[in-house]
Amino acid sequence: MTGIVVRTIERAALEVIDALGQCGVATVHEAQGRTGLLASHMRPIYRGARIAGSAVTISAPPGDNWMIHVAIELLQPGDIIVLAPTSPCEDGYFGDLLATSAQARGCRGLVIDAGCRDVRDLTEMAFPVWSKAIFAQGTVKNTLGSVNVPIVCANAAVNPGDVIVADDDGVCVVPREKAAEVLAAAQAREANEGDKRTKLAAGVLGLDMYKMRERLEKEGLKYV
Amino acid sequence: MTGIVVRTIERAALEVIDALGQCGVATVHEAQGRTGLLASHMRPIYRGARIAGSAVTISAPPGDNWMIHVAIELLQPGDIIVLAPTSPCEDGYFGDLLATSAQARGCRGLVIDAGCRDVRDLTEMAFPVWSKAIFAQGTVKNTLGSVNVPIVCANAAVNPGDVIVADDDGVCVVPREKAAEVLAAAQAREANEGDKRTKLAAGVLGLDMYKMRERLEKEGLKYV
Amino acid sequence: MTGIVVRTIERAALEVIDALGQCGVATVHEAQGRTGLLASHMRPIYRGARIAGSAVTISAPPGDNWMIHVAIELLQPGDIIVLAPTSPCEDGYFGDLLATSAQARGCRGLVIDAGCRDVRDLTEMAFPVWSKAIFAQGTVKNTLGSVNVPIVCANAAVNPGDVIVADDDGVCVVPREKAAEVLAAAQAREANEGDKRTKLAAGVLGLDMYKMRERLEKEGLKYV
Amino acid sequence: MTGIVVRTIERAALEVIDALGQCGVATVHEAQGRTGLLASHMRPIYRGARIAGSAVTISAPPGDNWMIHVAIELLQPGDIIVLAPTSPCEDGYFGDLLATSAQARGCRGLVIDAGCRDVRDLTEMAFPVWSKAIFAQGTVKNTLGSVNVPIVCANAAVNPGDVIVADDDGVCVVPREKAAEVLAAAQAREANEGDKRTKLAAGVLGLDMYKMRERLEKEGLKYV
Amino acid sequence: MTGIVVRTIERAALEVIDALGQCGVATVHEAQGRTGLLASHMRPIYRGARIAGSAVTISAPPGDNWMIHVAIELLQPGDIIVLAPTSPCEDGYFGDLLATSAQARGCRGLVIDAGCRDVRDLTEMAFPVWSKAIFAQGTVKNTLGSVNVPIVCANAAVNPGDVIVADDDGVCVVPREKAAEVLAAAQAREANEGDKRTKLAAGVLGLDMYKMRERLEKEGLKYV
Amino acid sequence: MTGIVVRTIERAALEVIDALGQCGVATVHEAQGRTGLLASHMRPIYRGARIAGSAVTISAPPGDNWMIHVAIELLQPGDIIVLAPTSPCEDGYFGDLLATSAQARGCRGLVIDAGCRDVRDLTEMAFPVWSKAIFAQGTVKNTLGSVNVPIVCANAAVNPGDVIVADDDGVCVVPREKAAEVLAAAQAREANEGDKRTKLAAGVLGLDMYKMRERLEKEGLKYV
Repeated sequence: MTGIVVRTIERAALEVIDALGQCGVATVHEAQGRTGLLASHMRPIYRGARIAGSAVTISAPPGDNWMIHVAIELLQPGDIIVLAPTSPCEDGYFGDLLATSAQARGCRGLVIDAGCRDVRDLTEMAFPVWSKAIFAQGTVKNTLGSVNVPIVCANAAVNPGDVIVADDDGVCVVPREKAAEVLAAAQAREANEGDKRTKLAAGVLGLDMYKMRERLEKEGLKYV
Repeated sequence: MTGIVVRTIERAALEVIDALGQCGVATVHEAQGRTGLLASHMRPIYRGARIAGSAVTISAPPGDNWMIHVAIELLQPGDIIVLAPTSPCEDGYFGDLLATSAQARGCRGLVIDAGCRDVRDLTEMAFPVWSKAIFAQGTVKNTLGSVNVPIVCANAAVNPGDVIVADDDGVCVVPREKAAEVLAAAQAREANEGDKRTKLAAGVLGLDMYKMRERLEKEGLKYV
Repeated sequence: MTGIVVRTIERAALEVIDALGQCGVATVHEAQGRTGLLASHMRPIYRGARIAGSAVTISAPPGDNWMIHVAIELLQPGDIIVLAPTSPCEDGYFGDLLATSAQARGCRGLVIDAGCRDVRDLTEMAFPVWSKAIFAQGTVKNTLGSVNVPIVCANAAVNPGDVIVADDDGVCVVPREKAAEVLAAAQAREANEGDKRTKLAAGVLGLDMYKMRERLEKEGLKYV
Repeated sequence: MTGIVVRTIERAALEVIDALGQCGVATVHEAQGRTGLLASHMRPIYRGARIAGSAVTISAPPGDNWMIHVAIELLQPGDIIVLAPTSPCEDGYFGDLLATSAQARGCRGLVIDAGCRDVRDLTEMAFPVWSKAIFAQGTVKNTLGSVNVPIVCANAAVNPGDVIVADDDGVCVVPREKAAEVLAAAQAREANEGDKRTKLAAGVLGLDMYKMRERLEKEGLKYV
Repeated sequence: MTGIVVRTIERAALEVIDALGQCGVATVHEAQGRTGLLASHMRPIYRGARIAGSAVTISAPPGDNWMIHVAIELLQPGDIIVLAPTSPCEDGYFGDLLATSAQARGCRGLVIDAGCRDVRDLTEMAFPVWSKAIFAQGTVKNTLGSVNVPIVCANAAVNPGDVIVADDDGVCVVPREKAAEVLAAAQAREANEGDKRTKLAAGVLGLDMYKMRERLEKEGLKYV
Repeated sequence: MTGIVVRTIERAALEVIDALGQCGVATVHEAQGRTGLLASHMRPIYRGARIAGSAVTISAPPGDNWMIHVAIELLQPGDIIVLAPTSPCEDGYFGDLLATSAQARGCRGLVIDAGCRDVRDLTEMAFPVWSKAIFAQGTVKNTLGSVNVPIVCANAAVNPGDVIVADDDGVCVVPREKAAEVLAAAQAREANEGDKRTKLAAGVLGLDMYKMRERLEKEGLKYV
């Protein structure tokens, strides 16, 4: 079941992907019914990046980054590499040389449930990474994994071609087939939020805006 | 024991609160006998904020932020929301809409032993948060908690109206009744520190300044 | 076995130390055969510092920073303090006063498998620290430890006088006797990397540059 | 996407399930190419249980065990409940009353990426549980989840009807469609292991039995 | 605020304490409105103990067990020692000698948010301990703490004389003044549970017994 | 620096080793000045084992157990295998087949800062293991490590031939050259403890037995 590389995957339309990226993780996550979030230990190596792209997935052995080289050949502009180790690992699978190569092919970033290194260089290159650890520990190239197979990354199921959205709040995966539908819901949500924000800034209470008082009373809330 | 909201709480004098904020967490913590620190997992979502305020406390179920809406109505300028979940949770209870509402009422920040989200927006709004996690995971509004009751937050006991001091070093709680006394001790300590800093910068050794050599020798320290 | 202070230690040549610092942690770690890394929980209190120096080591009891005062007297320009508690601890052993004193003696930074505090001041002073925690918790001065003895810090063995290299990727220790040899290997590696980076940026694949295709096929990699 | 209950699911043949249970987790995991393991934090509440069964899956909100009641109605003899909270939680979703009910319907055990309680009673009842925590914290029944939908539990993808194998080594999931095939591989592996064990017990070295010496030498292993 | 020893504390009636112990942690926790649980990292060093007693509290510095000796003098039959370190620590504060001394005074056990050691001896002595860690690391006797002052232990507030209930599910604290009231609620709950257990064992579903079907339908649960 | 196997190592005398094992971890650790403890995450896979032996050390890549086969050939009766991965890993490096082979050569147990599996079999075989995790995850045999070189295992430095003592309290390493000296101190300590235990059991207080009252008063302890 390892040693498989799927060359061709389907991707969502780039305009959908880009629009999802503009919505951001929290909104997209809400818009698809609060599903798809990767675990909270997936943190950006620097603040302020907000990206979306198509997942090129990697299943890799612990401490072995061979498959990243294989995956890079398959990258298309707009892709994001998503790597899950086959057992928990925080080694630095990825550094500035791999980032240079990935960036040359239009890759938008990396999501890795393990470690990365050379983070000063990656920051200067504006190549964003969401990882479990920053760790200089090197890896080897001795054992096969797979590329573009379904994986579970940081407790979320990711299929190749799914849309990945990542920002300072974390990482969210949107199933490719639902990308357009989720985008519509996310944009509706955003429009709605602008209005709410204005009211709240003017001092309207959520208790009133969301008409919560009656339900709170019914549930038995007591003011003393 | 849940479903209680205390409308009116006593607060410390605002000039005492502000002065405690200027002292910062490490000094205040020392000044009150090294007590009152929240656990070290409480980290600021951005660096550089240093605030103090009166605690409006929330005890909330895991994954349910209903009580924050209730608490916001009770906020006065200078307050800080302090939320403890009733069991460990890192969901994103709080985002930019709630921050907008809280800020509109003069709230100075949030201390939450759980997660928050929309951190890019919160940073832009200059609404500081100290939390256990940054996590986009949404919450529901289905189960009551309590507001302005005594809580334990991140291993520290907090009563409504206590003074919260928070900066890059973490979060400290000062019992309301002791706020003025702790402030006096903190300011004395600060005055003292300026003098020490000058001497140390000039090359005077702590060993001499604090007269430690004799005690070290007595304890048996051996130079070889 | 505690209560020992070794006054005089051997150090590597300062030009070797400085050159190792310029190579950075990931390169130095690779150059010495992927050894010497401290655990990934050792994180810088601010980003962007890259230092190297000679280790002045401290073995200290949990929650007791007395030995730091003893160690500061022994510091020479170019030194880095490396502190390992005798059991896991995240107390704030070190703050701005100790940093002022250490900096006055030419100390380049601190590596501590415990906590530090006053991080806003330390950042302003440009005194870098790599620590396990940022925590305002104070310490006492009641129990002896040792200075300039061999220690294990964050799962790495450190001898006094070893070269410490630290940057955003973490912390690496280079045995003093091997410093020149490791530097040569690191510099060779760096020269080599520039060339690789140029090729990869131009679109050459690692698969081809490192001639991996044949070995991957031999291992059984299947494209589908 | 929540609030869905799938009444009817396909299950593997009970004789296949039982035979997989006899092979145990380590063997089954190897037999299916080292895939399907749940994270190592999933530990049995008591030692010595070794079970297999068909997964009845639950996706539940943090701190809310309502869906377990819904799932119990759907249990058939030979089933195992597999619960994943929608965000990390260690509350005690499950205790002796639910176990009594589940056991009355022929349920063989529970796998829960959260907490359970009443473990003394569960042990006496011989109702095995693999969980992230043992924690008396109670839950509520206020928010819907789903039953018999695909979930990710402790970093492994589980579909309703998949075969769960659990013992002192942890928990492994076998896709329903592959259950017979994996069983064949597991049984072949077991037969093979008995022979190996006899040789090793007699003092034959793995180096010789697996013919490793040549490959080790080729890789450059040096005896000194 | 340290260095205080309160000699005389009030305790709940022993028959109330003993009856609470028979109810166990999960029931007592429920009976007092799901409050008072210590964090889930507090685990028994051996299985099967179920105790209750009056808390003699200790606030101790990290790695310093001096105050345990002070506390032992104050123990009365039926007491439980509850120790919270002033900062996180897992040192082995307590071993077989201290247990011998405590047991000689009628102490029923130890609850410590740190480490203990000699667990084989403690098990043989049937002296139960709930701790954060088992760790042979020794402690010193150099720095004062306090005895019989209010503490926060493992995220729960404990006052001297409060009733501690501990079993395989963890540890719960009951405020002394509420002990009788909580006992009544716990016993009512227990009576009720026996009846439920019988019904569930007979195959009655919780869905029916608790009349959940209507509310689930109203919330929108869909069977497919 | 990897790929090295040292065939011949010096060992301590077996009677010294066995006597250290009878003293147990806590006593030995105290007897050598509270040094040498491995981190508290090193836990026995079953309770009740108490062993000592000579360390045969392994430095192994993450997820690769090849070197264990190499090490087994070098085992002598009375040895204990001590394995440190080169980066954090919890894979199951070791199971019943390796244990059978090791036991056939007189090996007394395994200390591994990673995972082991087949723990039910290992328990039945009475082959004790202290590990960081129990995890069925398999490993490969593709990358060299080293055998009988100095390692750091679970934050403790271990040299080949050092004496390892392990029991329910954890694991301690005694430098080979100091084994006899530490044994003498440990036995003296034990003799002493028996006397203390008798007094304490008879109700004598530690406060009096250790003559602490005066020093406590001098430090300022106040009874109220």
